[in-house]
Amino acid sequence: MENTNEKMSPVPMRGMRDLLPKEVELRHSVINTIRAVYQSYGFTEIETPVVERAELLNTGEGGDNEKQIFGVLRRGLDIEEVKNIESLQDLVDGGLRFDLTVPLARYYANNQANLPSPFKALQIGNVFRAERPQKGRYRQFTQCDIDVIGETSSLVERELALATSEALLKIGFSDFTIRLNDRRILKGIVEACGFTPSEFDLVFIIIDKLDKIALDGVAAELDERTTNDEAVTKLVDFLRRAASADVDPFAELPAMIDTAAITDLQSIINDLNEQADGNFVVRFDPTLVRGMGYYTGPIFEIEDKDFPSSIAAGGRYDRMIGKYTGTPVPACGFSIGFERVIALLEERGATVSEAKEKKVIIYTPEIVSVRTVLKLAKEARATGETVLVQSRKKNTKKQLDDLTSLGYTAFCLLEASDSPLQFKDLTK
Amino acid sequence: MENTNEKMSPVPMRGMRDLLPKEVELRHSVINTIRAVYQSYGFTEIETPVVERAELLNTGEGGDNEKQIFGVLRRGLDIEEVKNIESLQDLVDGGLRFDLTVPLARYYANNQANLPSPFKALQIGNVFRAERPQKGRYRQFTQCDIDVIGETSSLVERELALATSEALLKIGFSDFTIRLNDRRILKGIVEACGFTPSEFDLVFIIIDKLDKIALDGVAAELDERTTNDEAVTKLVDFLRRAASADVDPFAELPAMIDTAAITDLQSIINDLNEQADGNFVVRFDPTLVRGMGYYTGPIFEIEDKDFPSSIAAGGRYDRMIGKYTGTPVPACGFSIGFERVIALLEERGATVSEAKEKKVIIYTPEIVSVRTVLKLAKEARATGETVLVQSRKKNTKKQLDDLTSLGYTAFCLLEASDSPLQFKDLTK
Repeated sequence: MENTNEKMSPVPMRGMRDLLPKEVELRHSVINTIRAVYQSYGFTEIETPVVERAELLNTGEGGDNEKQIFGVLRRGLDIEEVKNIESLQDLVDGGLRFDLTVPLARYYANNQANLPSPFKALQIGNVFRAERPQKGRYRQFTQCDIDVIGETSSLVERELALATSEALLKIGFSDFTIRLNDRRILKGIVEACGFTPSEFDLVFIIIDKLDKIALDGVAAELDERTTNDEAVTKLVDFLRRAASADVDPFAELPAMIDTAAITDLQSIINDLNEQADGNFVVRFDPTLVRGMGYYTGPIFEIEDKDFPSSIAAGGRYDRMIGKYTGTPVPACGFSIGFERVIALLEERGATVSEAKEKKVIIYTPEIVSVRTVLKLAKEARATGETVLVQSRKKNTKKQLDDLTSLGYTAFCLLEASDSPLQFKDLTK
Repeated sequence: MENTNEKMSPVPMRGMRDLLPKEVELRHSVINTIRAVYQSYGFTEIETPVVERAELLNTGEGGDNEKQIFGVLRRGLDIEEVKNIESLQDLVDGGLRFDLTVPLARYYANNQANLPSPFKALQIGNVFRAERPQKGRYRQFTQCDIDVIGETSSLVERELALATSEALLKIGFSDFTIRLNDRRILKGIVEACGFTPSEFDLVFIIIDKLDKIALDGVAAELDERTTNDEAVTKLVDFLRRAASADVDPFAELPAMIDTAAITDLQSIINDLNEQADGNFVVRFDPTLVRGMGYYTGPIFEIEDKDFPSSIAAGGRYDRMIGKYTGTPVPACGFSIGFERVIALLEERGATVSEAKEKKVIIYTPEIVSVRTVLKLAKEARATGETVLVQSRKKNTKKQLDDLTSLGYTAFCLLEASDSPLQFKDLTK
């Protein structure tokens, strides 16, 4: 739409969007289901501000997300000050949060005295990333995270995966797969192949591209960007064997020091598969990396059968919260890809089922007083039902059709001031 | 807390706050009640982005709020560009919304083709104002608005006031007063006293200070800032008579042209008082101004008996949305002061009543396997109840006390791998 003198452009900020009533309704219904499941596991909901101090968002913990921060201009700047800045960072003192994990770490340190230990946190909130806008991706989107802070036991990994699976099942997903790995195992594999610690992160980044560039692409990039040819051959060989459907990837693991991590992960996978009751599958994927550098132990991704990428993911991050509390605090979290979940549900035509009939009272103002209509509406609403009041339009047929398309099914047409309150389906 | 090399400061952005689980619980409970009442009147919920284009926020419609906008730094700026800017506005392309009304106007224009007419919108969302931080006032806060767009009938004013009153009653308020005025009456009064149209806005601003500086203060400021002494005398005289409890303010109105506005307002007040059933009082207050310049007709404020300022407010604004749609569109809205409402409820010790018993299974990992505990928890959770799983701590007494303070009342202590699942109150 064009911006003229008469009229202001009504489009939203670039990359952001308006949500229509039907969209909000589905989102709330899904959020309520997820919330109820998480609450049944003892998670309690918290909220942090949308704006965080710039310093907090630029620590490196956020990885590439830090490049996509929406900066919040420092208040009280004057133009002379601006002309003398040394860095663009001098212009901002805050930023919009790009995830809910960094704020959670700050929150825990700030409120520890008032929180139980272990602390089971649920967060549902908007995050912001200045990504290149593209179809179906927005710069403001909702995340839905659960985290357990202050507990090292892998009971936590199990509970997070089970609670998230139960939430996904209840909102209509099934036949999904939970892939698990452990950062310690990943490290062990790369180490056993002969890479040096300084190369680990680079090798992880390349392995992480398996989905996109396949094994040949990974092999080529390892050749090009790392120096130990023998290590590359060994790793590519391992990745090839691990990808085969016929082998147990645990059996393919090279000899490595951290056998505890392997035993743990095997036990987590067995317990989860037992609890799955055949509704979903849990399997070890030694090639799973997860982008964020802060993970220290088990990592997870949930893949829907219809969706190529993940619909939920998480992992253990035992070294992040200590940076705010001053003492080490273990933590593990799981995040539902809320926007992907909603997009998939919308694609499948999911709708919110109305518990109650939606009613309309249509009156003719010249005949029936507003006072009478208000009384009747109050009476009809006493049982908690939705009762819309509208004055009668010239084209009553169209009015009824429009209301029907909004989900109204019961109509009362008041044509005299003493008409009784009787609702019927007038569209049939 | 101090910022050291070892530890990052965990405090939130200045003027913003973290919400603890108990706080979030109360807020959600109140939001759910309000939402259910508004939905029963046929309002449908929408969402707009938190960030809006800077141009949209700086139109003048937002009044003083526009001075408190958090600006969002333009992406892709380079430092040379910054040194050559002509105005601070060149640094930003967006801002955080300071209310939900300006975004609603844009939303309506942007989505009109997909919305019914009249459109009954409900919005619950965060807004941001860089006010000077003070006790109980935060720079991010929640607003809760209903608006009807596309309807001139004062059925709308009645429904907005009734729906808001019902919501306030259901969340625990009573004995509140709805004060009503009409911008056309206010203008009529000032005109009848002899002020010229160019002085109207200034006179309104001064009358709006009645609460703060009392009648003497208003008289002094009128004397000082306006020129027509006779008009001042007449207006002060009117304000004195209108404030008296013994008079019907309608009878005190000077002769004015817009008698339709007076008749309308009288009828709205009568209907509302009839519907109030004695739960609240509705009265005409010819001194009510409401700060925002965009109001064109009836204006409202709801005052709680314990709170000196308003807990809800609104009015008709028939000339704002047309600036975005290009054609005139009538509109009327009502906003609950959500943060004030929550603060009052917290002061009064309001808590969320738990529908179900909250249970804990405590196990000793050396004796009972995680696998067994997960099974038992699933069994216990089957009825939708909250079941927390914790490993037994050395100080079990303290563990039970801590859990009790979190609202857990039923405990199952698993001391053998074949212990039955029996919950009891172990703290008594």
